[in-house]
Amino acid sequence: MSGIVSGHVTSPRGVRAAGGHCGIKPSRPDLALVVTAAPAAAAACFTTNRVQAAPVLVSREQVRGGRAQAVVINSGNANACTGEQGRRDAWEMVDLVARALGISRALVLVASTGVIGVPLPRERLRSGIPALAASLGPHGEQAAEAILTTDAFPKTGAVQIEIGGHAVTLGGMAKGAGMIHPRMATTLSLVTTDAAVDPPLLQRALRFAVGRSFNRISVDGDTSTNDTIFLLATGAAGAALLRSPEDPGFAEFQDALVALTQHLAHQIVRDGEGATKVIAVTVSGAASDEDARRAGEAITTSPLVKTAAYGMEPNWGRILAAVGRSGAEVDPARVAVSVGGVHLVEGGVGHGERMPAAAQAMRAPEFAIDVDLGLGMGSWSGWTCDLTEAYVRLNSGSMT
Amino acid sequence: MSGIVSGHVTSPRGVRAAGGHCGIKPSRPDLALVVTAAPAAAAACFTTNRVQAAPVLVSREQVRGGRAQAVVINSGNANACTGEQGRRDAWEMVDLVARALGISRALVLVASTGVIGVPLPRERLRSGIPALAASLGPHGEQAAEAILTTDAFPKTGAVQIEIGGHAVTLGGMAKGAGMIHPRMATTLSLVTTDAAVDPPLLQRALRFAVGRSFNRISVDGDTSTNDTIFLLATGAAGAALLRSPEDPGFAEFQDALVALTQHLAHQIVRDGEGATKVIAVTVSGAASDEDARRAGEAITTSPLVKTAAYGMEPNWGRILAAVGRSGAEVDPARVAVSVGGVHLVEGGVGHGERMPAAAQAMRAPEFAIDVDLGLGMGSWSGWTCDLTEAYVRLNSGSMT
Repeated sequence: MSGIVSGHVTSPRGVRAAGGHCGIKPSRPDLALVVTAAPAAAAACFTTNRVQAAPVLVSREQVRGGRAQAVVINSGNANACTGEQGRRDAWEMVDLVARALGISRALVLVASTGVIGVPLPRERLRSGIPALAASLGPHGEQAAEAILTTDAFPKTGAVQIEIGGHAVTLGGMAKGAGMIHPRMATTLSLVTTDAAVDPPLLQRALRFAVGRSFNRISVDGDTSTNDTIFLLATGAAGAALLRSPEDPGFAEFQDALVALTQHLAHQIVRDGEGATKVIAVTVSGAASDEDARRAGEAITTSPLVKTAAYGMEPNWGRILAAVGRSGAEVDPARVAVSVGGVHLVEGGVGHGERMPAAAQAMRAPEFAIDVDLGLGMGSWSGWTCDLTEAYVRLNSGSMT
Repeated sequence: MSGIVSGHVTSPRGVRAAGGHCGIKPSRPDLALVVTAAPAAAAACFTTNRVQAAPVLVSREQVRGGRAQAVVINSGNANACTGEQGRRDAWEMVDLVARALGISRALVLVASTGVIGVPLPRERLRSGIPALAASLGPHGEQAAEAILTTDAFPKTGAVQIEIGGHAVTLGGMAKGAGMIHPRMATTLSLVTTDAAVDPPLLQRALRFAVGRSFNRISVDGDTSTNDTIFLLATGAAGAALLRSPEDPGFAEFQDALVALTQHLAHQIVRDGEGATKVIAVTVSGAASDEDARRAGEAITTSPLVKTAAYGMEPNWGRILAAVGRSGAEVDPARVAVSVGGVHLVEGGVGHGERMPAAAQAMRAPEFAIDVDLGLGMGSWSGWTCDLTEAYVRLNSGSMT
């Protein structure tokens, strides 16, 4: 996550935004609009859940053209499992934005997050969207606030690089908190840049970055019906158009995008519902990368590992048990486990005398679990958070 | 679960047991011994976790001969991840039992449950096992008490059937509470019977029953390193030896075994760590049985479904989201969901007005979630419990 500076989706040139309250939620901000000065190259990744919300279905269709000029996002209502009416409502959001901005409806992307199964309050959007369109400006922070649901804080960041002598900026926002798991785990995110990138290459860069960021985090193993990340490239920085992975500057662009999406994904885990700890999990020495991923995901989703993290208990038996059930090739006699940098297991046998040192290391707000399977060169790393009483309280409460 | 009566592993003829405290735990019972009058036919299923505790490795070897006369089980220490010393300790438990009873060591099975990664206190067993062997009797209840860890109550039951005019009994015990998930989810269980069954057929009957009972429950999605179920058949009822699935009486025996193992598995879910609710999940109308299982397991392991159950919130959106990410074929427009018998979703769209009735039904200590995918004939059913603050408290505490 090198090079990250504070910034927003409006940090790149040619991007304006607004965020406000239109009445979907009782009082907090619930509507965000991000608009580029001219049609931008557009890319997106969506949830792999078979049950997909109406705005996912609509945006999937819209982004196919590779161009977009506006993204509208509401929080407080996911417009998911709302049937034909939901589809009509998502299209109406698109139309309202197109009309308010005087642009083609083909250039508008839409996303929603919040309660599932409740129809959108259309009238709120009919007045809210034109009002928001009238207040566009360098208000990326407002937009980031308006897309939150149970999040405790907005997730934003920016990266600056140079392409051919031109300063290029990437800025992003995300929302997270619950129903977070690899396989498009972002719930919602938007990244903008003033680089110029051909849509197919932009899509490839986004997929690569998501695979190394949003798809490596887990809060609770649930995957939402609304997961979406958009990437808009305005080209306003004046740098040469990137068309191929070999073009000068693309490697830097790709690195910056990975750094920014990892920064956003990390913030999602830090703000996991009820979380008090971030745990960086690395599995190395696996027979294959795929095996390392399996073992890593078994650890990042294990309720017993996550409750032990909450209790600051270096219970490495639970880590081994998770690895053992993951389906990855495991030879217990070769496994090494360290928690917070303290080597607790070597050759499958524990060092009880080192437990106090590991427990001490777990007092930090973020600590590492490293597992070396001792079998090959496969590796994976990702993040998870602890499982707390507050998570249960939050999610047993009224229809969040 | 028809035909279940109160009973224990000592209910079948030819089985004695003892349970007591040998000092592995500070004060509660921690050692059980079950012995048949003569060598019995023996079968077993074990954890599929690749990290397997020493007693699993030893009993896997022992049960291959198809005969056993004694089962020794300790709680308080799983003898897992204890390396070569753990293997020696498990064999010493076998030897101590063989010596105390004057039988061949080839006839002794061993199991352990409790903390992972701590060597067994051998001296306690060296005095404890002979003492227990001296107090054998119709003490199945004592034995069931002695195998518990974080369980709130012992899990026992019996079934009586008739085979060729002879009264045949099956009795069982199990322990559960945490690290419970399909794919041998029992932690530990022992079933005895005075039926006479050839070992290969006994193994087949056990595998069938486990597939319909222990492998259909989930408390927390974690799978232990020690899961074991043993089945001993003494033949003392005097009924004819069952050798083939076509033999008269085998169908009744199989049904009784399924009923008893389901009864034990149901008790494990009811006593899931911190649980306040049992949820019976049925998925029907799936494209295949395998798809139904996938969708069913996604529901039984979803932390969001389980916290909603705790809060008695009929949040069907979370149920649909779990089904959607399960990998099962799903057409959202065809899905029907009912909670507590109240139809909340039809054709993928919710009936908000029925929510209060469903919330009312969820106040019962056990309620059903039924999902009809509307695609085919595949079906699956299983049980899970709610996810509560008490689960988190229990598992964030000191090295359970």
